[in-house]
Amino acid sequence: MNLDDVIRTRRSIRKYRDEEVPDSVIRELLDLARHAPSSMNGQPWYFSVVKEAETKKRLADIKNRHCPEDKRAFRADFMEAASVIVVVSVDSRRAHERDVENAILAAGTLLLAARDRNLGAVYMSAYQADDPLLREEIKRLLALPEAVNPVSIIPIGYPDESPAPKSLRSLDEMIDDESI
Amino acid sequence: MNLDDVIRTRRSIRKYRDEEVPDSVIRELLDLARHAPSSMNGQPWYFSVVKEAETKKRLADIKNRHCPEDKRAFRADFMEAASVIVVVSVDSRRAHERDVENAILAAGTLLLAARDRNLGAVYMSAYQADDPLLREEIKRLLALPEAVNPVSIIPIGYPDESPAPKSLRSLDEMIDDESI
Repeated sequence: MNLDDVIRTRRSIRKYRDEEVPDSVIRELLDLARHAPSSMNGQPWYFSVVKEAETKKRLADIKNRHCPEDKRAFRADFMEAASVIVVVSVDSRRAHERDVENAILAAGTLLLAARDRNLGAVYMSAYQADDPLLREEIKRLLALPEAVNPVSIIPIGYPDESPAPKSLRSLDEMIDDESI
Repeated sequence: MNLDDVIRTRRSIRKYRDEEVPDSVIRELLDLARHAPSSMNGQPWYFSVVKEAETKKRLADIKNRHCPEDKRAFRADFMEAASVIVVVSVDSRRAHERDVENAILAAGTLLLAARDRNLGAVYMSAYQADDPLLREEIKRLLALPEAVNPVSIIPIGYPDESPAPKSLRSLDEMIDDESI
């Protein structure tokens, strides 16, 4: 697909068909994700590829337990039905104090690459400033090395929903310069 | 361009030809950027489009003054030659405590859209955890509303350099699961 179509048609997908995404396709997505920019070209990414049902369930449990009050309507159980959950982490020894930026730029690339392959995916956070336990529990579950911190969680599967196009706020409202 | 080519050929560009990027093209980029995912679909983006030479210079000065020790080799002066500098901010009243994620997902989309149009761009940060003055000075310079916080700075122009393809760390080194 061309870039504009990928960007415009990407939606957050939380329902997946019961069908496995081939490893080769997941590798393609990760291969693209590592082309994201990174601070001082540190390429600090670390991708955990979660395929075990039990690990998916425990990830969903952690997310549910640490869900902030205002997001309680959105349970994380749907993750268990994803074919694969990719957790994007960053090795802080390579991240030049830019762990979060580096991870999210790769995660965003991953979301677009998934859409391009007609896969469904959704962005979820693996940390919370006021609740450090969220990150710690995920880190322990995935047995991540001490210096490696999870930032984003991306469930991926074949979509079993096709949400209507998103209604967007007007662009003019978002731009501060009236001249353009 | 197709998505894979855009992702694989994007590089951080810091040298620009002395040629103006039309407003209509900048609008296209911002229009695409707002299709990024956002927490609870809050679409909290606020784009400052900097075209004045004096404002570009002051932005570069702020970045230089707040540059961390280990990045001193990289002066920000090059920004002044960009046709346009887009500062991506987030209105925290719409961001559901996910200001940084929301901004970076839009900024990453903007970088890909720029590459797709053969424009050169580079990701820069507008905040630093241990140096809150960086953000504050940018906020004051751009006269951003109290609730609106700058996260990313993206200089954009016609490229005047074509860096060699980036040499990437091996994908296997970045994946924790040997089975894929």
